[in-house]
Amino acid sequence: MKTDIQIAQQAELKPIMDIASTLSIPAEEVELYGNYKAKISLKALERLQDQQEGKLILVTAINPTPAGEGKTTTTVGLGDALNKLGKKVVIALREPSLGPSFGVKGGAAGGGYAQVVPMEDINLHFTGDFHAITSAHNLLAAMLDNSLQQGNPLNIDPRQVVFRRVVDLNDRALRNTIIGLGGRNNGVPRESGFDITVASEIMAILCLAKDLMDLKERCGRIVVAYTYDGKPVTAAELEAAGSMAVLMKDAIKPNLVQTLEHTPAFVHGGPFANIAHGCNSVIATQVALKLGDYCVTEAGFGADLGAEKFFNLKCRFADLKPACTVIVATVRALKSHGGVKKEDLGQENLSALAKGFENLEKHLENVAKFGVPAVVAINAFPTDTKEELNYLYQRCHELGIEVALSEVWAKGGQGGLELAEKVVKTIENKESKFQVLYESREPIKDKIQKIVQEVYGGRDVAFTAEAEKHIQRFNELGYSDLPICMAKTQYSLSDDMTKNGRPSDFTVTVREVRLSAGAGFLVVITGSIMTMPGLPKRPAACAIDIDEQGKIVGLF
Amino acid sequence: MKTDIQIAQQAELKPIMDIASTLSIPAEEVELYGNYKAKISLKALERLQDQQEGKLILVTAINPTPAGEGKTTTTVGLGDALNKLGKKVVIALREPSLGPSFGVKGGAAGGGYAQVVPMEDINLHFTGDFHAITSAHNLLAAMLDNSLQQGNPLNIDPRQVVFRRVVDLNDRALRNTIIGLGGRNNGVPRESGFDITVASEIMAILCLAKDLMDLKERCGRIVVAYTYDGKPVTAAELEAAGSMAVLMKDAIKPNLVQTLEHTPAFVHGGPFANIAHGCNSVIATQVALKLGDYCVTEAGFGADLGAEKFFNLKCRFADLKPACTVIVATVRALKSHGGVKKEDLGQENLSALAKGFENLEKHLENVAKFGVPAVVAINAFPTDTKEELNYLYQRCHELGIEVALSEVWAKGGQGGLELAEKVVKTIENKESKFQVLYESREPIKDKIQKIVQEVYGGRDVAFTAEAEKHIQRFNELGYSDLPICMAKTQYSLSDDMTKNGRPSDFTVTVREVRLSAGAGFLVVITGSIMTMPGLPKRPAACAIDIDEQGKIVGLF
Repeated sequence: MKTDIQIAQQAELKPIMDIASTLSIPAEEVELYGNYKAKISLKALERLQDQQEGKLILVTAINPTPAGEGKTTTTVGLGDALNKLGKKVVIALREPSLGPSFGVKGGAAGGGYAQVVPMEDINLHFTGDFHAITSAHNLLAAMLDNSLQQGNPLNIDPRQVVFRRVVDLNDRALRNTIIGLGGRNNGVPRESGFDITVASEIMAILCLAKDLMDLKERCGRIVVAYTYDGKPVTAAELEAAGSMAVLMKDAIKPNLVQTLEHTPAFVHGGPFANIAHGCNSVIATQVALKLGDYCVTEAGFGADLGAEKFFNLKCRFADLKPACTVIVATVRALKSHGGVKKEDLGQENLSALAKGFENLEKHLENVAKFGVPAVVAINAFPTDTKEELNYLYQRCHELGIEVALSEVWAKGGQGGLELAEKVVKTIENKESKFQVLYESREPIKDKIQKIVQEVYGGRDVAFTAEAEKHIQRFNELGYSDLPICMAKTQYSLSDDMTKNGRPSDFTVTVREVRLSAGAGFLVVITGSIMTMPGLPKRPAACAIDIDEQGKIVGLF
Repeated sequence: MKTDIQIAQQAELKPIMDIASTLSIPAEEVELYGNYKAKISLKALERLQDQQEGKLILVTAINPTPAGEGKTTTTVGLGDALNKLGKKVVIALREPSLGPSFGVKGGAAGGGYAQVVPMEDINLHFTGDFHAITSAHNLLAAMLDNSLQQGNPLNIDPRQVVFRRVVDLNDRALRNTIIGLGGRNNGVPRESGFDITVASEIMAILCLAKDLMDLKERCGRIVVAYTYDGKPVTAAELEAAGSMAVLMKDAIKPNLVQTLEHTPAFVHGGPFANIAHGCNSVIATQVALKLGDYCVTEAGFGADLGAEKFFNLKCRFADLKPACTVIVATVRALKSHGGVKKEDLGQENLSALAKGFENLEKHLENVAKFGVPAVVAINAFPTDTKEELNYLYQRCHELGIEVALSEVWAKGGQGGLELAEKVVKTIENKESKFQVLYESREPIKDKIQKIVQEVYGGRDVAFTAEAEKHIQRFNELGYSDLPICMAKTQYSLSDDMTKNGRPSDFTVTVREVRLSAGAGFLVVITGSIMTMPGLPKRPAACAIDIDEQGKIVGLF
């Protein structure tokens, strides 16, 4: 069996200029990065402002399990299948982070015969967006420490600096550091640390900005520290926003690539799905909607986090109206939610499947609360039995939900035709009455409560003393009107990762609330959130190599 | 008067594909980065291997002064002037570092009407080479700390880790840090720090590598730490070299841009000129030599550092034979070497000029020792008087050296015709008998002694106890055969930056010797060497901005 990278390396790509042509993008709006990658000028959005928008399809999933769901693969394959049906479709995906490629994780450009290409480039430096974000982020951090060094005119309390630095690598030794050592010429000593670039607030900003000026203003609003008397200090006060925007003037332009079947795909931005909203850029989605009759996009983690934030944050900010949600599940993953151990997932187990189905059912209920019609995609595995698949079809039909087996991993678009047909049928027959779950102006605790009760199915929310203090502070500082970005384990509907299926009667504990004033949300933290991954005992990097012909081995 | 950025923004560029065409580079060897930047495939070097090489012209300078010399500007203008003379010429320059653009320094892409363009891109992310180097460097650092974390199988002494991390920013607070804090899941605590990316050994490696396999092997030879029993630990032992090469597979390809007058220019790599050799990549120079009848290139700092390392390191490694050296001087800078204060440099002062001329004369003598003919370029300033210029012409003629006034800053190639003619004449009339100054196999101290006495004109070399220890260690470990990379103040021929002109009877103190086993040299440190710049009281970044049309202001 071929690996993802072998399939990708054997693909025959079309020149990206030809892909742009199929979308009627004029050559002067295409900035080539080699023959197979391009940035599209933001002038395209101006040119297309009166163009009717296509239908927005969100691909999300049940709560992730060790068994794997294949959300990106399904997104790509669904796009290819719609293309095969003769629909004008554009895919919008997140950019992968460089760091994890050298740790344990494979690539993040789909899999099997449902991939975006050139996958090696996409998984490495791509068009440099993440490096630009890293530079802008660390420039702001350097200007902050320089302000401390140069007499501290803004009265910043070095103990209350909340802006860390970032690198796009897994580097646990940088999680907690002391910087500024070595005497008065070498900075002001203080505790700090590094996150991975996808956890940068600037990544979230890039993905929510409407245009370069909006990006600059959002950068200016970032709260980097507090003064000794508790006042927020912003990037604008450090006069950093203009330089940050200069560094991201190209990064803000969406990147056009193609699938293995030449379906156009924008791959742009990739914020964390815990402390940020986990979706590709608003700009990429908007361009895709203007260029295609259908835009297929995805959100991070399961629907409790990914879809909730896609709806309540991305759609709210960008005024998007999703037409349909595809929830990806696998027989194996549902059995895992039903309590089956990883080593037994290959065996038929209808009672576990029934129990695990409750997880999917809850996500279907949730999507309905947002007024968006849903379709279930069963990502096929060789161990799935006919009885198991039949059971899933039957249950979905009882709920009035279309369900389709997706074989895009093995067959590409051809394997997604059933899914594509049911998505089109659902969009044509069921009108989306999209609405957000809460109003931004509601009190902070009410907004959290609504998410926990309505989406997670929890009974109540508990706040630690620290979280209470944070909420009080943000109320006082005038940040209470921001929407909520939940940081919670992706493995459970609750905040306890061991509770699979559909837990009930649980209380979610909020430990901390952080302010992302530039991105425009309050990050509500439940449990411990990792913002800098580590490398495993033997990192993937050890086996990665490149030969004289430039052929890469061991990557993905 | 227009600023550099205004001139650059008003330039009409030719599509870079057209520039490549003038060099007969086939389209399939050109990888576009937008319309005005391209990477050239290393297949060009294979294709051209039997092609006769052009003449290599090195542009260097007297010791820098606060008055400024304009070395890059002269390099670009000389290229344009040769072009105007109908010569087939290709320029090879270093890439600017991103960090200093936001500190105090302006751009590093020439100035006035002698610039390479698109200058904003070149001074910002360009084609991402420095970001690739930063990633490869920091991946190696992360793998090292991960080895400490994962049971330390290589027996690394955390107190003897010599490999730091890098960012391409001026960030003094990162000079000295403690990392790995926060308990056993978060790394092994140890002292460390960050350098700016141009100080990375990997930058030097990229600039000395013959091809990707050579780059990979050199990366593998980097000594990152020592074991508790004093044995060197290399990147190869950490199994990092393959991944590092993967990260730099595109960065190794030279970048083609153009001057304001459409002369082709490779801008590729940019190692520090103190702890590294300060020249653009060997690959860019080699491609330029194959494509042009003349290649004009530059080296960092003054000729005592830049030219010495260009000859003894770059030419030695790459087997290059420079045909001519241009030494750039200005009347103002020579008067500064003659003891005139900055505020008085606008006034005619023939006696100070005569005294300052000694600095230039020493550099002319030095270049002669390497067997390379020299031409003096007087970079014109409005305050230069006729008598001062006459004096310089007369003194150079007495020495049998061609001298030309260069007005390329104000007039572009037209202002460099006299210089170009004299360079061509010198190359045609004076044969280069290039030779390196020492053999690599000579003892370490002998090599240092030769540089100090022959190039700097010093009497002797003193070694601190620490330096003695280092030399003994590298002798024992088998690294004594490496050539020498001197790190010395650029402001004086001696190691005392206050000694201008032509100091004599001085002793150079070697404080430290560092090993750059991947780059392939021993770094000999005299004085304190800054490898991470800081930001000034009000960084340039504060005034940099970008408007709705994407026009940048305040940069450079």
